[in-house]
Amino acid sequence: MSDCIFCKIISGEIPSHKVYEDKNVLAFLDINPINPGHTLVIPKKHSADLLEAPEETVVELIKIVKKIALAVMKATGAKGFNLGLNNGEAAGQAVTHLHFHIMPRLENDGYKLWAGKSYKEGQAKQIAEKIKNEL
Amino acid sequence: MSDCIFCKIISGEIPSHKVYEDKNVLAFLDINPINPGHTLVIPKKHSADLLEAPEETVVELIKIVKKIALAVMKATGAKGFNLGLNNGEAAGQAVTHLHFHIMPRLENDGYKLWAGKSYKEGQAKQIAEKIKNEL
Repeated sequence: MSDCIFCKIISGEIPSHKVYEDKNVLAFLDINPINPGHTLVIPKKHSADLLEAPEETVVELIKIVKKIALAVMKATGAKGFNLGLNNGEAAGQAVTHLHFHIMPRLENDGYKLWAGKSYKEGQAKQIAEKIKNEL
Repeated sequence: MSDCIFCKIISGEIPSHKVYEDKNVLAFLDINPINPGHTLVIPKKHSADLLEAPEETVVELIKIVKKIALAVMKATGAKGFNLGLNNGEAAGQAVTHLHFHIMPRLENDGYKLWAGKSYKEGQAKQIAEKIKNEL
């Protein structure tokens, strides 16, 4: 898409630090990393998000994510990584072009994961039924 | 594995609120959700994490994740979702059995994503080269 930042990175109109490229997939460094080596993996064909993307695109991406995650770990000396994908503005998706975040993690790097809540009596059973009914 | 909580959920030894099940994949509610409907998607065959799991397992999981994410959105009325996978103890992986988190998000639900840092001059180029060399 002509006004998409990631499409412009793919075309070379906007520069990036690329770590991987093939016919269908590009991976490059996030400019605001959790830790150095934080990498984005995107399809070259524009899809807004995981739900909009064709299944074959998502499958191709996750195969590359798996390979790059290992390379990021080796290159950074990270002890672990978070894989993240923000789908929709309400989920903090900043660029409307499907992308996985591979975020290398070091011990005591200060990054906090989410804090979980608790279900009220009966609430979990009810919501599980609702989800099943949508499948 | 005999001491794995998720393997015990698969076998039925530990109860869960299941939302999806097939021959190879199980999905059930996280007991400490970001928001109601927060769902975990796991392979039935034990793998510790994304790096240890065979490629075909990861591919099968992401296909199901895509379907369940849509159902979670519909069932909860969420405006978006975060997909998450914590790989390794340093990344906050709490159960050593590969699992994707599908976390439905509502506007102003209070959940904060990571805060990015900045690269020093030349640092991004250097780390990108290192990652490329590991691929």
